[in-house]
Amino acid sequence: MRRPDHQTTTLAAEAVLAPYLRDQAAEFLRSLRLHREHSTPTDAGTQRAEEAAGALRHAARRISGTLHTFRAALEPGWADQLRTELAWLSGTLAREQAYATRLGRLLEALHQLSGAPLPAARTPAGTTTSTVAAAPSGAAAGDKERAALGVGAARAGALLERQLTLARTRAHSAALQALGSSRFHAVADAVALLASEVPLSHTATDPAAEVLHAPADLAEQRMLDAVAALPPDEALEPYNEAQDALWHQARLLLRLHRYAHEVVHGAPDPVLAGAGRALDLHRDAAEAAAAAASAARTPRIAPATAYALGVLHADQRHEVEAARSVFRETWPYAAAVTAP
Amino acid sequence: MRRPDHQTTTLAAEAVLAPYLRDQAAEFLRSLRLHREHSTPTDAGTQRAEEAAGALRHAARRISGTLHTFRAALEPGWADQLRTELAWLSGTLAREQAYATRLGRLLEALHQLSGAPLPAARTPAGTTTSTVAAAPSGAAAGDKERAALGVGAARAGALLERQLTLARTRAHSAALQALGSSRFHAVADAVALLASEVPLSHTATDPAAEVLHAPADLAEQRMLDAVAALPPDEALEPYNEAQDALWHQARLLLRLHRYAHEVVHGAPDPVLAGAGRALDLHRDAAEAAAAAASAARTPRIAPATAYALGVLHADQRHEVEAARSVFRETWPYAAAVTAP
Repeated sequence: MRRPDHQTTTLAAEAVLAPYLRDQAAEFLRSLRLHREHSTPTDAGTQRAEEAAGALRHAARRISGTLHTFRAALEPGWADQLRTELAWLSGTLAREQAYATRLGRLLEALHQLSGAPLPAARTPAGTTTSTVAAAPSGAAAGDKERAALGVGAARAGALLERQLTLARTRAHSAALQALGSSRFHAVADAVALLASEVPLSHTATDPAAEVLHAPADLAEQRMLDAVAALPPDEALEPYNEAQDALWHQARLLLRLHRYAHEVVHGAPDPVLAGAGRALDLHRDAAEAAAAAASAARTPRIAPATAYALGVLHADQRHEVEAARSVFRETWPYAAAVTAP
Repeated sequence: MRRPDHQTTTLAAEAVLAPYLRDQAAEFLRSLRLHREHSTPTDAGTQRAEEAAGALRHAARRISGTLHTFRAALEPGWADQLRTELAWLSGTLAREQAYATRLGRLLEALHQLSGAPLPAARTPAGTTTSTVAAAPSGAAAGDKERAALGVGAARAGALLERQLTLARTRAHSAALQALGSSRFHAVADAVALLASEVPLSHTATDPAAEVLHAPADLAEQRMLDAVAALPPDEALEPYNEAQDALWHQARLLLRLHRYAHEVVHGAPDPVLAGAGRALDLHRDAAEAAAAAASAARTPRIAPATAYALGVLHADQRHEVEAARSVFRETWPYAAAVTAP
């Protein structure tokens, strides 16, 4: 394990914890103000409103993570209550962004697929085409079939756009509704209080080395255990959706560890941030694959549409694998991941 | 370039070339005898008949490649004629094996797909499932849809099995017909003559270093040029079917170089053999992907079948990429492939 900075070992816990929480609370309030300035209830979010919502989630996650990891140095009842409410808030706000990301990722992948020439056009005559004994053959029929596949990719794109835009619009309305609710106003009030005064427990006056390092080490250990529990990187098995949950769990625990590291060391760890980005991509690709599979279950779609969605699904599952590889390659704790 | 063994530099060209051709001709005749013993006109090839056909093609390719590369040391008219006939023969015999390999590869990939749980079952409720606003939701409907996708994989397997088995049976009949034809008997007679006497040109009595090394170097250079002309390994672009032809060309030229190396050095080069296997896998995956795309153009297939075929297609295109990576990683001529 990494040792904390020597600077923090001589400070009282409150002198480390309280400024961090106050800063994040101030950032939360600033983002909220920005978001209100740039939002209208009817539009599906301007870019500035999206950025503000992102910053709001960013701060909410850090406050929530800190309340979780360093609960013993804070008023526990207050910490648990606010943490629950912040989790609700960031979950609600994240959904809109997630649908937008998913749609962008899938349309980009579809574009790559349909932009490229289709394989039948490249195959020497008499080999592959002869395998489809029942299908019409010849150049004219082949052209028609190729056009049909191009149509499939376009239709799949339109279907995904319809479904995910609808979901995104709903998520946008839900987010606006949440931000106008009395439940949210109570959260905002609690964070406003936090920006001026942090409710600490009596142990918070003890040295940071005693009060903060043990919970930070525990967060690190939980994350390391989760990473060590990841299935080994054996043969390429793109359809291992059953393993996704373990990776998502590792992502959440890495995030908690990253935030605890920020608190104790006063700055983010760039290596951990890189590993976190790989796990974010992993999550995005897994969810995009699921969205493609889900769209393929829409009743009465054309076979060509379903075919393009199948290609998309496989594509995103390979992206899942690629993200896992990047994570393993950049992971700084050597022994934990490479063991069989 | 690698220099030839010193042993061959002191020999006459005929003392290197003639034994090699005689050995391959003897192997051709032995395999032909075995094939006849284990073949019946009605069965679709026992394992022993397949092995014998494989050995026959193996010898035919080596004779043909040697006639091509070292044409100047042989009677040119005879060499050109026999080479054309051997290409016809090995092409005809290869087709049956190719369909069998393709079917095995696709069914194996489908098995991996359908054996794994489908993604929707793993997604937390309320995220992905809610993206399909129009589709029926809830556990019971979800189960039905998953069952339908399992059916899609099974139907895709049945469709591919029907199409490729039919193609294979036709190829088997065509191979048996070819082996019974007067055209084939003429080839077999020519090879039988070759087993006892190799028609050499007047330069064949000159030293091997003068007569054989220049054509062997040329075969190597053509192969190196083809490898250098391969597109660089940039971002993962699995739908680059347009590049396949360049890779197939590199595979054929590597094969000619390998055979020339066998002639001049008296033994195969294991590193080149490994690179050749990577290019064989590349070809197999590219053809399997094309077969999946081709099957998806069968009229009136169910969307679930088309979806599974789309997944298969993408999967095999990723296998194409993987084979290219293996080739690049194992390729011993550093500069030629890694240059941007």
